[in-house]
Amino acid sequence: MQTRIEHDTMGDVEVPSEAMWGAQTQRSLQNFKIGGERLPRAMIRAMGLVKKAAAITNAELQQISEELSGYIIGAADEVISGQWDAQFPLVVWQTGSGTQSNMNCNEVIANIANQKLGNPLGSQKPVHPNDHVNRAQSTNDSFPTAIHVAASLQINELLIPAVQKLRDTLNAKSEEFSEIVKIGRTHLQDATPLTLGQEFSGYVSQLDHGLKRLQQALAGLYELPLGGTAVGTGLNSHPDYAEKAAVQLGSLTGLPFITAPNKFEALAGRDAAVFASGALKTLAASLNKIANDVRWLASGPRCGFGEISIPENEPGSSIMPGKVNPTQSEAMTMVVAQVMGNDATINIAGASGNFELNVFMPVIAFNLLQSIQLLGDACNSFNDHCAVGIEPVREKIDYFLHNSLMLVTALNPVIGYENAAKVAKTAYKEGKTLKQVAVELNLVTEEQFDAVVKPEDMIAPNVK
Amino acid sequence: MQTRIEHDTMGDVEVPSEAMWGAQTQRSLQNFKIGGERLPRAMIRAMGLVKKAAAITNAELQQISEELSGYIIGAADEVISGQWDAQFPLVVWQTGSGTQSNMNCNEVIANIANQKLGNPLGSQKPVHPNDHVNRAQSTNDSFPTAIHVAASLQINELLIPAVQKLRDTLNAKSEEFSEIVKIGRTHLQDATPLTLGQEFSGYVSQLDHGLKRLQQALAGLYELPLGGTAVGTGLNSHPDYAEKAAVQLGSLTGLPFITAPNKFEALAGRDAAVFASGALKTLAASLNKIANDVRWLASGPRCGFGEISIPENEPGSSIMPGKVNPTQSEAMTMVVAQVMGNDATINIAGASGNFELNVFMPVIAFNLLQSIQLLGDACNSFNDHCAVGIEPVREKIDYFLHNSLMLVTALNPVIGYENAAKVAKTAYKEGKTLKQVAVELNLVTEEQFDAVVKPEDMIAPNVK
Amino acid sequence: MQTRIEHDTMGDVEVPSEAMWGAQTQRSLQNFKIGGERLPRAMIRAMGLVKKAAAITNAELQQISEELSGYIIGAADEVISGQWDAQFPLVVWQTGSGTQSNMNCNEVIANIANQKLGNPLGSQKPVHPNDHVNRAQSTNDSFPTAIHVAASLQINELLIPAVQKLRDTLNAKSEEFSEIVKIGRTHLQDATPLTLGQEFSGYVSQLDHGLKRLQQALAGLYELPLGGTAVGTGLNSHPDYAEKAAVQLGSLTGLPFITAPNKFEALAGRDAAVFASGALKTLAASLNKIANDVRWLASGPRCGFGEISIPENEPGSSIMPGKVNPTQSEAMTMVVAQVMGNDATINIAGASGNFELNVFMPVIAFNLLQSIQLLGDACNSFNDHCAVGIEPVREKIDYFLHNSLMLVTALNPVIGYENAAKVAKTAYKEGKTLKQVAVELNLVTEEQFDAVVKPEDMIAPNVK
Amino acid sequence: MQTRIEHDTMGDVEVPSEAMWGAQTQRSLQNFKIGGERLPRAMIRAMGLVKKAAAITNAELQQISEELSGYIIGAADEVISGQWDAQFPLVVWQTGSGTQSNMNCNEVIANIANQKLGNPLGSQKPVHPNDHVNRAQSTNDSFPTAIHVAASLQINELLIPAVQKLRDTLNAKSEEFSEIVKIGRTHLQDATPLTLGQEFSGYVSQLDHGLKRLQQALAGLYELPLGGTAVGTGLNSHPDYAEKAAVQLGSLTGLPFITAPNKFEALAGRDAAVFASGALKTLAASLNKIANDVRWLASGPRCGFGEISIPENEPGSSIMPGKVNPTQSEAMTMVVAQVMGNDATINIAGASGNFELNVFMPVIAFNLLQSIQLLGDACNSFNDHCAVGIEPVREKIDYFLHNSLMLVTALNPVIGYENAAKVAKTAYKEGKTLKQVAVELNLVTEEQFDAVVKPEDMIAPNVK
Repeated sequence: MQTRIEHDTMGDVEVPSEAMWGAQTQRSLQNFKIGGERLPRAMIRAMGLVKKAAAITNAELQQISEELSGYIIGAADEVISGQWDAQFPLVVWQTGSGTQSNMNCNEVIANIANQKLGNPLGSQKPVHPNDHVNRAQSTNDSFPTAIHVAASLQINELLIPAVQKLRDTLNAKSEEFSEIVKIGRTHLQDATPLTLGQEFSGYVSQLDHGLKRLQQALAGLYELPLGGTAVGTGLNSHPDYAEKAAVQLGSLTGLPFITAPNKFEALAGRDAAVFASGALKTLAASLNKIANDVRWLASGPRCGFGEISIPENEPGSSIMPGKVNPTQSEAMTMVVAQVMGNDATINIAGASGNFELNVFMPVIAFNLLQSIQLLGDACNSFNDHCAVGIEPVREKIDYFLHNSLMLVTALNPVIGYENAAKVAKTAYKEGKTLKQVAVELNLVTEEQFDAVVKPEDMIAPNVK
Repeated sequence: MQTRIEHDTMGDVEVPSEAMWGAQTQRSLQNFKIGGERLPRAMIRAMGLVKKAAAITNAELQQISEELSGYIIGAADEVISGQWDAQFPLVVWQTGSGTQSNMNCNEVIANIANQKLGNPLGSQKPVHPNDHVNRAQSTNDSFPTAIHVAASLQINELLIPAVQKLRDTLNAKSEEFSEIVKIGRTHLQDATPLTLGQEFSGYVSQLDHGLKRLQQALAGLYELPLGGTAVGTGLNSHPDYAEKAAVQLGSLTGLPFITAPNKFEALAGRDAAVFASGALKTLAASLNKIANDVRWLASGPRCGFGEISIPENEPGSSIMPGKVNPTQSEAMTMVVAQVMGNDATINIAGASGNFELNVFMPVIAFNLLQSIQLLGDACNSFNDHCAVGIEPVREKIDYFLHNSLMLVTALNPVIGYENAAKVAKTAYKEGKTLKQVAVELNLVTEEQFDAVVKPEDMIAPNVK
Repeated sequence: MQTRIEHDTMGDVEVPSEAMWGAQTQRSLQNFKIGGERLPRAMIRAMGLVKKAAAITNAELQQISEELSGYIIGAADEVISGQWDAQFPLVVWQTGSGTQSNMNCNEVIANIANQKLGNPLGSQKPVHPNDHVNRAQSTNDSFPTAIHVAASLQINELLIPAVQKLRDTLNAKSEEFSEIVKIGRTHLQDATPLTLGQEFSGYVSQLDHGLKRLQQALAGLYELPLGGTAVGTGLNSHPDYAEKAAVQLGSLTGLPFITAPNKFEALAGRDAAVFASGALKTLAASLNKIANDVRWLASGPRCGFGEISIPENEPGSSIMPGKVNPTQSEAMTMVVAQVMGNDATINIAGASGNFELNVFMPVIAFNLLQSIQLLGDACNSFNDHCAVGIEPVREKIDYFLHNSLMLVTALNPVIGYENAAKVAKTAYKEGKTLKQVAVELNLVTEEQFDAVVKPEDMIAPNVK
Repeated sequence: MQTRIEHDTMGDVEVPSEAMWGAQTQRSLQNFKIGGERLPRAMIRAMGLVKKAAAITNAELQQISEELSGYIIGAADEVISGQWDAQFPLVVWQTGSGTQSNMNCNEVIANIANQKLGNPLGSQKPVHPNDHVNRAQSTNDSFPTAIHVAASLQINELLIPAVQKLRDTLNAKSEEFSEIVKIGRTHLQDATPLTLGQEFSGYVSQLDHGLKRLQQALAGLYELPLGGTAVGTGLNSHPDYAEKAAVQLGSLTGLPFITAPNKFEALAGRDAAVFASGALKTLAASLNKIANDVRWLASGPRCGFGEISIPENEPGSSIMPGKVNPTQSEAMTMVVAQVMGNDATINIAGASGNFELNVFMPVIAFNLLQSIQLLGDACNSFNDHCAVGIEPVREKIDYFLHNSLMLVTALNPVIGYENAAKVAKTAYKEGKTLKQVAVELNLVTEEQFDAVVKPEDMIAPNVK
């Protein structure tokens, strides 16, 4: 590998000749050979956005020239677009402030700009990674700002649409199934009936609430640490910088970012991320219920509940045609387990700030953004490859409904509770239908039974 | 032990003669000898409130007579007041719907009422535990309603005032300490200065956000499952019952309860509890930061940071006067660990509903209410026995501030970065003060140094 | 309330006249009004055992007189027996070293002894709580020793026998069900057959492994911190004390306790507890599988899997005879959720030691002992009220077995995979049996079908 | 992209022309666009090893020809070596059995072998992915076998050596620092002294125990599910296959693998992985203590504890020379947070098996192997870039030691506890040294003080 020499305050570093990063990134690469998990695309994009907003604001406040600002903006736009992602090689397991990734971004942007102007990589001229790209910033405020920006964008652009799409599919199913009366189940045991549409309406309502909770979480993420600089005081920044930079990030993203009202909290706490993860794990709990219900309702085809069918996406088995494994439910429930574990990680990390800084930022960013991505992708996948194709298996639904002993309830007013109980018990013991037993015991005629035992009348408040 | 005989559909049960509970409670006692954790007071109170609201609503809708309703209300009021808590002996580890505790409540209320009317315990006359006390209810809707009511009351009555009180104390300290400039610390390493008041303002802001998050969580808890009855359809209830009962609970508690828009979700999901636990664990993360900062800042007295002193509440040691252990911080951080574990439990439980019911309700109630109680109590304790007595140790604060090498930053404009760096490195290496070295190197005079190196000018945005 | 005055280094304290505790306990009561969770019986017993072992060893090493030692031993025996549990009123949420509970124990033992000798409570004569009862101990070594002793005893006396009992019951069922061929299920979907006995043998094997893991965890708990005194150096103890006291605790309990090889770890880490909790959560995972399988296999009775029946312990519903709710499975799975949350708490607490001490000891003790108790009790309850009464529902098992499309596999060698697949697909599509379709398609005769499709030949390795 | 057409039982699939995978992998790629987390190298290697062992055993048992076996072995060796990793594109979030990754491996191996023999990709001749590569296997047994093999290898090859190396470094430091007496700290407060070597010996002991726990966890991982095939019965396998294949895996890896005694547990439970994660999180707890102690002991350099110095690996700040951020501790503690979250994920996943299968296998594999990798790499990184360079800062250590008020203890026998307490209190109040005060109060002479107050005599059991 060909290398060039870069210098920093600790001396010389050999950097690969073609690398757009510089000395500090290189040192991190050498000092942190841990795992391979890099900061995700969403984070690189957000760091680019922060640098761009800072450059615009710095020019506006006359801290750097319009010309320099323009160079930085041009380079930052390329970082934002994703074309330089390969130049962000650092792993999550680095300094807990994310300094090395922040410097990575500064170095890449400076090199992009300087190279365009015909200067060699590492020249730091005319754009200097610290003095210009990082101007009026510390990692301590810009990195958590990037976390908030990345999470806000991913929730808005990926997760909310995905949840909404799944919600809409389930809602359409709920309406489509609104007339299909089926047996209810509590404690996994047969209970009074409801419609399949009602059952699905519960899922819709869970996701509606989930969407509301995401908005509540976003409110906190919209508060940006930028402007706190090293310890929250804003040292080395202009008094108007924090507010203007937040406005700038708002206009770049279309999201209602504001500057955090207290910068000491904003640097040392990551509570907004902890709370956002709380919204995500709640959504995960909802999705677990939905995915589990689907896989159990589709169990069988012969030896399970089998009340619904789901799309057959892959060969189940070379031996057993008709075996449709609920693989989308399985992927979803695995995602749920991951999101709940990520939440535990974020809790520990978020609770561990000391004094003026929380030094668990990369691990928080990594887990929060993974949870958002996985939930969003899993909702899309579950929607497209499972939910849209859910169909009722009417014979099975009817079979269960009419075999359930619980319908006996409707006979209470006619033959009395004692006799009704006797009917049910006998039916269970002898494996007969309620109708058979009721008629055999001369308690009602077939016609009477049919007139009274109507599950479709048992699916709403009915007392007058 | 003297017993009386009670009957249920499974036969005879011996119940202690004086017990206010009946057959179903007794069976649970016998079948679930697991641990000793009972449902807390807040839950018993809430069950009483649900029974009272139901009785009022049932009379209003002419489902039971005013007379019967009055008996139930009278007895429920006594349950609400706490005087019958000893009659709720069941453990958390019972049926997952909480049926047995719900029946416990029905039985106790019926017996209280009937006993007052001169009838023997177990007579079920004139007030019947199922037909009257449990009227228009299933455990499946009334128990989760009680969870929402209990959690809402505890958050409003205990937790929010406690957080607010601690917040106010810390805010007063923040204002009191607003002029005390001290060294900042990032990565646990000396950094640029800030005021002790600014440091405390971060805590205040964390708690302000925490209070907001509790309100967001309450919004979901205010939606009540009551009226869904067994499977969410509202079978055996009056069409107006759900809404009226929720209004009633609102007027009994002063909280803005509404009927849940979807009862299928309301029975089978416990997402509002999962999300509320998410707000609690976020508050816990904030409190962990605060309690940890306090115990580290108070560490010493001689061999630690020692920048603040905290009240001495207990003899530290019979040997070492001046050793004040930060016991309130320790209690708080233990509470935090518990709340985070409780959150994990609630996540698993909340994600585990099937079909029309979630059968992890007692364990959710137990953990959620424990988290609320512990956080509330711990905030009060930490406030009263620690926060109110926090005092700065000015000599230590000044000593650190003026020994920090980081103040060299202020010399940059005067002697240049290179020279400033040389000053700092020499001071570190030789264990001298910056001033000593700067003067020794003939870079500035003492007077110049004093005029330039002013930490009090480094605590706010300063660029023009 | 009548009080007496006690003194400590901070001045006077009013203690209830009849209280066996003293000043330090009283101060803790006043300073820590948090929740109501007390240290459990197992912990009080273990603290008593530690005091007794210390007294014996101190006499042996001539640190206290035989007479004083005898007084302490006598009083400690009463504490061990449980008769003074009401005198241990402190909550978990106190100082993180457990100092106040340790002093509570010292004070109670001294008062028991002194009172017997005719001296008033609080006289501290002739037995002094610190100088004699706490002799050669610090809370920092004696409290974690009590945790190890308590957990070891509870695992040996409660948990292992309970797991063993459930394991034996399931093993007996496995043998009893060894001839019952049933359909297997993977992905919740019908699969190739196995015997019900084989299915249960998996549960037995899980518990066998669980028992082995408990032994592995015990190995670490048997190492005792006692003798490290305040910081691990053993200051103020006799060089032979640590080893002799551990031997003494071994002979008092019958367990192979040894002195921890490194006392600095023993005070500052609680890794053995963290690992023990790891064994407990693994057992919980096993029990979750077992309890879940049981409740799903028993689901129905008509509209679920219904392959087994479980004991009816409580009236399921006044309407639906035959509805047996799987309440023991529900209690067990709630316990599992709790144990997993407790594990999260213990992880955080165990990871949080600093320098010479871990100050999360009461919360570790509380959660670890709760997990042990709940798992032990739940195994007993599940065994006695559910497992022993599990019966196969042979008609349902046979019905599923013979309706499963998967048996078509056996026809592959006779009619070829293509034809077999066609049979299965047609059967699924038209809702017919395999036999019907195979005969209708003229692929085999009824006799041929019956001769070839034999599930009982599909339950073991069969390739030659 | 150029494609070729492959067929499976569901019809045609377009596969990229050059892809070594086939139809089933391709369908998974299309159906599971969730996140980007792939199964790690260790898992691909282990799947290759399983295929190789199966091929050897199948030939030995005359289930496939020696020739076919040889082709498979040759291709498997290339997969094992890592050269085809890019051909394993599937994400973790797929079917919960890992079927698609298992088929991916079967397809790749068949294509490698067939291509070498001059046949086109997708020809399935002479080596068929199902009939030959997957011979006598189901995903349900081979995938969890690969998990056990992968985890066992990674623990043995990566984690144990890394922990051992760090342990040895800390042990060398412990010996090197054995004479350096320093102040102890409990509750973060000054306590009695110990040596820096003693402090480090606690870390060594934690890691020694950690290594033992890894061995205990390995015992369970060495039991292999292979041979259970689809549901645990071993259908379609030779009676000797399971045992012989396990032996074969043992000889290929040098690890003591055995066939799991019960295959029903082996497919449906993942308890060995849950327990192994329990050992990993315990190790994480230990490492958290160590990394935290190091960063706090190194805090400063001027305004913290500052008793040790750690290597300066990166420029701390362009302003503050001497600011060495404890970045290796930060990376380690972030890894710890991740491992604890992964443990929560594994707990949920491991507890969620149903009937004959656990369908959370890919997420278990992913998290378990990530935890192993991160802990191993972090130990190496922390060792090489931090632990080896830890040096005592003797002036600071001495300063604290001699300023600590706790040394007054040594005066008790000479001047009595009352006077000693007075000395300490006065010293604290007036900010003086103990010696100053003691002499000023005429309690001892300077010479007497120096003769008695000797911290080096306070670091071991000292009572006779």
